[in-house]
Amino acid sequence: MSHAIATKVLEPSHRTGEVFEQYESNVRTYCRTFPKVFARGEGSYLFDRDGERWLDFLSGAGSLNYGHNHPVLKQALLEYIQGDGIVNSLDLHTTAKEEFLLALNEVVLHPRGLEYRAQFCGPTGTDAVEAALKLARKVTKRRNIVAFTNSYHGMSAGSMTISSSLTRLSREPYFDPGLVTFVPFDGFTGCDNEIGFVRRLLTGEGSGTPPPAAFILELVQCEGGVNVPSVEWVRQIVDLAAELKAVLIIDEIQTGCGRTGKFFCFEHYGIIPQMVCVSKSISAYGSPMSILLIDPALDQWERAEHTGTFRGFTFSHLTGAKALRHFWSGSDFISSLAANGDQLGVGLSSLKNEFSGHIRDTRQLGMLSGIKLLNASLTKDVQRNCFELGLIIESVGPQRDTLKLLPPLTISSEDLAAGLSILRDALRQSIRSQQNL
Amino acid sequence: MSHAIATKVLEPSHRTGEVFEQYESNVRTYCRTFPKVFARGEGSYLFDRDGERWLDFLSGAGSLNYGHNHPVLKQALLEYIQGDGIVNSLDLHTTAKEEFLLALNEVVLHPRGLEYRAQFCGPTGTDAVEAALKLARKVTKRRNIVAFTNSYHGMSAGSMTISSSLTRLSREPYFDPGLVTFVPFDGFTGCDNEIGFVRRLLTGEGSGTPPPAAFILELVQCEGGVNVPSVEWVRQIVDLAAELKAVLIIDEIQTGCGRTGKFFCFEHYGIIPQMVCVSKSISAYGSPMSILLIDPALDQWERAEHTGTFRGFTFSHLTGAKALRHFWSGSDFISSLAANGDQLGVGLSSLKNEFSGHIRDTRQLGMLSGIKLLNASLTKDVQRNCFELGLIIESVGPQRDTLKLLPPLTISSEDLAAGLSILRDALRQSIRSQQNL
Amino acid sequence: MSHAIATKVLEPSHRTGEVFEQYESNVRTYCRTFPKVFARGEGSYLFDRDGERWLDFLSGAGSLNYGHNHPVLKQALLEYIQGDGIVNSLDLHTTAKEEFLLALNEVVLHPRGLEYRAQFCGPTGTDAVEAALKLARKVTKRRNIVAFTNSYHGMSAGSMTISSSLTRLSREPYFDPGLVTFVPFDGFTGCDNEIGFVRRLLTGEGSGTPPPAAFILELVQCEGGVNVPSVEWVRQIVDLAAELKAVLIIDEIQTGCGRTGKFFCFEHYGIIPQMVCVSKSISAYGSPMSILLIDPALDQWERAEHTGTFRGFTFSHLTGAKALRHFWSGSDFISSLAANGDQLGVGLSSLKNEFSGHIRDTRQLGMLSGIKLLNASLTKDVQRNCFELGLIIESVGPQRDTLKLLPPLTISSEDLAAGLSILRDALRQSIRSQQNL
Amino acid sequence: MSHAIATKVLEPSHRTGEVFEQYESNVRTYCRTFPKVFARGEGSYLFDRDGERWLDFLSGAGSLNYGHNHPVLKQALLEYIQGDGIVNSLDLHTTAKEEFLLALNEVVLHPRGLEYRAQFCGPTGTDAVEAALKLARKVTKRRNIVAFTNSYHGMSAGSMTISSSLTRLSREPYFDPGLVTFVPFDGFTGCDNEIGFVRRLLTGEGSGTPPPAAFILELVQCEGGVNVPSVEWVRQIVDLAAELKAVLIIDEIQTGCGRTGKFFCFEHYGIIPQMVCVSKSISAYGSPMSILLIDPALDQWERAEHTGTFRGFTFSHLTGAKALRHFWSGSDFISSLAANGDQLGVGLSSLKNEFSGHIRDTRQLGMLSGIKLLNASLTKDVQRNCFELGLIIESVGPQRDTLKLLPPLTISSEDLAAGLSILRDALRQSIRSQQNL
Repeated sequence: MSHAIATKVLEPSHRTGEVFEQYESNVRTYCRTFPKVFARGEGSYLFDRDGERWLDFLSGAGSLNYGHNHPVLKQALLEYIQGDGIVNSLDLHTTAKEEFLLALNEVVLHPRGLEYRAQFCGPTGTDAVEAALKLARKVTKRRNIVAFTNSYHGMSAGSMTISSSLTRLSREPYFDPGLVTFVPFDGFTGCDNEIGFVRRLLTGEGSGTPPPAAFILELVQCEGGVNVPSVEWVRQIVDLAAELKAVLIIDEIQTGCGRTGKFFCFEHYGIIPQMVCVSKSISAYGSPMSILLIDPALDQWERAEHTGTFRGFTFSHLTGAKALRHFWSGSDFISSLAANGDQLGVGLSSLKNEFSGHIRDTRQLGMLSGIKLLNASLTKDVQRNCFELGLIIESVGPQRDTLKLLPPLTISSEDLAAGLSILRDALRQSIRSQQNL
Repeated sequence: MSHAIATKVLEPSHRTGEVFEQYESNVRTYCRTFPKVFARGEGSYLFDRDGERWLDFLSGAGSLNYGHNHPVLKQALLEYIQGDGIVNSLDLHTTAKEEFLLALNEVVLHPRGLEYRAQFCGPTGTDAVEAALKLARKVTKRRNIVAFTNSYHGMSAGSMTISSSLTRLSREPYFDPGLVTFVPFDGFTGCDNEIGFVRRLLTGEGSGTPPPAAFILELVQCEGGVNVPSVEWVRQIVDLAAELKAVLIIDEIQTGCGRTGKFFCFEHYGIIPQMVCVSKSISAYGSPMSILLIDPALDQWERAEHTGTFRGFTFSHLTGAKALRHFWSGSDFISSLAANGDQLGVGLSSLKNEFSGHIRDTRQLGMLSGIKLLNASLTKDVQRNCFELGLIIESVGPQRDTLKLLPPLTISSEDLAAGLSILRDALRQSIRSQQNL
Repeated sequence: MSHAIATKVLEPSHRTGEVFEQYESNVRTYCRTFPKVFARGEGSYLFDRDGERWLDFLSGAGSLNYGHNHPVLKQALLEYIQGDGIVNSLDLHTTAKEEFLLALNEVVLHPRGLEYRAQFCGPTGTDAVEAALKLARKVTKRRNIVAFTNSYHGMSAGSMTISSSLTRLSREPYFDPGLVTFVPFDGFTGCDNEIGFVRRLLTGEGSGTPPPAAFILELVQCEGGVNVPSVEWVRQIVDLAAELKAVLIIDEIQTGCGRTGKFFCFEHYGIIPQMVCVSKSISAYGSPMSILLIDPALDQWERAEHTGTFRGFTFSHLTGAKALRHFWSGSDFISSLAANGDQLGVGLSSLKNEFSGHIRDTRQLGMLSGIKLLNASLTKDVQRNCFELGLIIESVGPQRDTLKLLPPLTISSEDLAAGLSILRDALRQSIRSQQNL
Repeated sequence: MSHAIATKVLEPSHRTGEVFEQYESNVRTYCRTFPKVFARGEGSYLFDRDGERWLDFLSGAGSLNYGHNHPVLKQALLEYIQGDGIVNSLDLHTTAKEEFLLALNEVVLHPRGLEYRAQFCGPTGTDAVEAALKLARKVTKRRNIVAFTNSYHGMSAGSMTISSSLTRLSREPYFDPGLVTFVPFDGFTGCDNEIGFVRRLLTGEGSGTPPPAAFILELVQCEGGVNVPSVEWVRQIVDLAAELKAVLIIDEIQTGCGRTGKFFCFEHYGIIPQMVCVSKSISAYGSPMSILLIDPALDQWERAEHTGTFRGFTFSHLTGAKALRHFWSGSDFISSLAANGDQLGVGLSSLKNEFSGHIRDTRQLGMLSGIKLLNASLTKDVQRNCFELGLIIESVGPQRDTLKLLPPLTISSEDLAAGLSILRDALRQSIRSQQNL
């Protein structure tokens, strides 16, 4: 083949990203921060095509809670594919989906006293959010949605309207703003009696706020800067939603599937949402999947009222069910999660002590944690140094000044220690070089 | 385990759907028409858990153009999984994505003289549409979108605004209508000089139509009833978009990847869109994937301006690339496609002759075809009879009176004949039983 | 008084517009075309402060159908003011409003077999339109409004959404587009079977048009270019509205009060609207007034659901009632209207004959007429020449190429002839000077 | 005339409201509270058709600040009409408008160091608001508007979006919500540091609030319950608007023209708005008029970009100018205003003392005052008793529990005392009868 471009394929080791710059859209982002061509994953490690490896504290933005290519899931998937299991079934009944529904109910919902119908959505988190908004509006016959400051729920048009952290939304007059009321997340205003303020804004006669169809809340705001609210605040918000007869939608896309130490983050708060958006690690192996859990009384969908081609992708059902049974049937995994969370907590404290002048704050709930640094440039520099030292880690928050740590839930104690150690070294380097400027 | 539900698992053969009724949302639809629990797929056949088989003329709503579990793709996927290939990479560079980009450019775009940047979207067709709308509005600094009657582009909020076939949109006052101008698709009004009307409506002084950011067009409307427009009409619409400096977005989600006899349906019409939405069979194996192809001059995205967790699902990149090289490198597959299309055409003609009183119309472009029957109840009955005789086939159109035939592109001549034969038998049965009423 | 500005007041004859340029907003428009300072009006004539006079074919944009300061109305008004009649009563009962309601019902509605409730609106035409849209949406529980190409209904936000002739609406992304479907007015597309096209767009399954709350139609489009539709077209539109169970709103703001030869323009078309917007000449003396006539079955307003301070301005009620009784009780006025209309028609024909190369078209219904010239620059020039020769006349239409003639309905035969004669001279001059270029 | 309805006219004294019930829309409201047919007005008194009189503390909802039919204005108007002054001039230059512009600048603006362009709007307050919103959006190229809780700015679609006191807006899904951010008016939440909340909500990163085109504020909320904010709060809000580069629009429709003791209410707060909406008493005689005062730098209107037929109603210009020169040229009127305000204040205190158990609060700024009673039923009863005792007085506020006192600014000391005395008697009666229940 004489084609010029084809020739390039012959020398892969000499390129990192040329093909992408030429052929992929400018919209790409992570690859600019971590500019290698990755090939393999094993447990807590990512490998690039030259065999170099990194500890992965990004975990596919929360979609790889059980690490890369867990052998139990891998084996199940290989067998399924070998046996010509059906791959995409739309919303036909399949053995894989049946097993997922059973595992979800037997392992997760029933033991927690929860009862939900599962809607399989187009396999992206944002589609579960779109479905929730639509259904809440249909059921309540209202349009307004109460969402929170620094929220992020997705990039499709409906989810974008309720994502206050998308400041570009503000800049662009090209999108419909939707009907949404943003209220302060716990601590946003820095004022006393924040909840009193919110309550008046939402319930006061003459407030101008139309009765909401729903409240949508990500209990720990991940993109928004790893913000962990108090139990008291959450309960007051939940009470407010109930008082207003608004549907309570909890977005567990990133916080769910054990990330915060319990299967659902809402378990920490002693609340029972009417709808729960679940995605990312629910498939357990990194493959696309998204479900909306619906209080049966609100499952007022008509047939086909919200559809999507890939909602019947069985690989995700299969590995998802397998993971539920493997990790969540007994109490061992939760215990190991708690131990990992404790180790992470100790590590964060230690970092905070050592770098008290450069770390503003650390936040943690289970294996979800954030380190808010002095500013965005330091954060960016620490990220870069981590990457050079073998650790992949993300930054979030309105000022992009917060490192978000999402280690695999299954990480070994040694690897967790190693990751924290790299982070310590990177912080030292970055602070030193900033001081030398 | 004494759990009541768990017990049920032990007797799978006695149930068809009980688990789904109890645990899955009412929104489900296909499973009501084809009420079996499916387990395996091989080529053109689907098998339920009891081993019964059906010829599959639904093909995962167009996501399984190459049939079920094609051995070449299957082998590649198994090796990739065995080798612990990275599964979800967000938008990191991966070897799998690199190979996909190279295959896309070498096999599909360059030989056709096309130059596009690929944006990997949240892996649902609707997300490629959302991205296209957003980018077209950003680039043109306009908001209005021209879409067509009986259009369907997806269920997320942005796509829903431009999907005129979603009549429920009309019924519900709970969603933002967006800023969209629906114009008649070729033949919709039944009036002469339809294009003259459209032209005046869009360009006439005082028409009230804001200058559009984009035209979005599915060249053969699939959900809308398998409507095939004339070349002349399409070219006039394309000229109109150009005259109005509107971005031309072609939705190839269902029509692309060879379904109409060419890789892109737009090749039939001698046009070059500025954006192309591709999904469904682009992954080739039934796994989720969605890309937006963008004229490089319009690739004005800022980094991270449209994101999504599963846009880096490598299984789809891997099998997608493999399929492009395997099927589309030479001319054999296109020839076989043409032969299949011819056989299908002959079959449709024959059916039309035999059932001239009950078939209003047949439509076909390549391996995408529709049979418009006398009414919805006949159509439903034929579907049911087909299913009993071993053929799965969908109905579409505003009146749900059109059978949509989506056989695998790789179907053997014998299987295609068998499918058409079942259809003939089902028609006979249905007509007879209707006459007996 | 030493104030610099005050001094200017002493020399009024030396200024034409200086005060306005300094103190009034740039938004002003008519005064740029007719740059004099006007002081008095008598019958068909306007006088500037220096005593120069003009025949007035503008008639306050249709608000002065009975000419300036008609002695009968003037006398009634003087007496009312002398007697300290209440001026603004909000929506309190007043003797003036009572008399208006009685006159309206006795003189106009009952003799025509019409039954309406009158809603007194904020005294601008646009407020009657706002009220109509609001009530139609409330009553039907729908949001979409069907409006027409080249429509104009006002400048407040609601009216603006349905005014397709406001091309600036299209250019500005700063306003909510509302939910409106614009369909072609009679003849807009120039295509055959326009009504068939509209019917399909509004009723066809899959058209994407939400069921409309209302159709709003100005029967003769005034700002839109004096477009007179056929009886057949109007009836088909009205039937279509009925079929769709949409409220039929007729905007008679400019066409009503005798302008087209009958009290309501809709009388020409043999239709009975469910809501009628009336303003401009309903007060008869040039003072602000606006009412919405409502089919009693649709008068589903709650108390105070649409209000406004000046809806109780009694001067307008008083002179309005007086005019109804004076002009419309017998048949003399209608006869004189017919005679005037005939004379105007003959005049237009004669002009069309003489200037066949420069007049594209003349349109007329009663005393509402338009002369569409070759282009906007000729039109502007004719306007200017008319003004110099003593005639005030407006231009309208999407290309501003149409002279709109609104002589007082009460104009004498001599004055009408004089006006037409000036118009002839102005046309001659303008054409000559254009030919000399 | 034998017409049945006509007969009724002959016996007016036997009817109060029958004609209105039959012929006027259900939307009417004041006439239900004050069910007489009114005929005349003189100074502070209204007379019904039987000659019974009432002290008028409603003053045409603030449109009759100088009382009814003030002899100076009446004389000027009679002369103007006698002399056939032009009545409606659209936006042509007229002597009456010229004189109004001169008076406005010489008497009001220049002495206060203010410089504004006047835009003559459709003669309703809401149209000045519509114009302000439109222009602010055009100038800033932004869409969001910051408005306040319990705000009221009018009933047309644009004004309605920013009127939080219209709770029916919340109940109806049929209107576009627009893009508006409601923030608490001074004291609304009852929380400490309310301004700190507002500041964070509007400026905090991730707040989700798009940069506003404008803040619109009625300094003393009239419909909202006669809420008088602190100087400190107002200045902080104004600073916030400046910081956000948002246009500051002050709605002086009801508070202006001396109602609060100064010509503009904003003079109390030491601020200079960029746009000021003025209507109601600007015409001085009760006739419709509305202007938008615009900072010359923001007067970026194109010709005809906001129009309306009755913006050239000269009666209002004439009496408006006359009133400015008569009342506002020297300092006598302001002194008398102050004296009246003092007397009113003493009266309010006295009432509050006497009825401390039933009056929650009194509010006052100049001649604008409110008495917040225990509940709506008491308020309604007091209104009814006042009416029977000869005083017309309105109720406002989100709970309709606040009596709003708008005596004429020109009221004599005796009449003011008489009005307060009636109010005292009515309170006594109402409280007594409530206690007897």
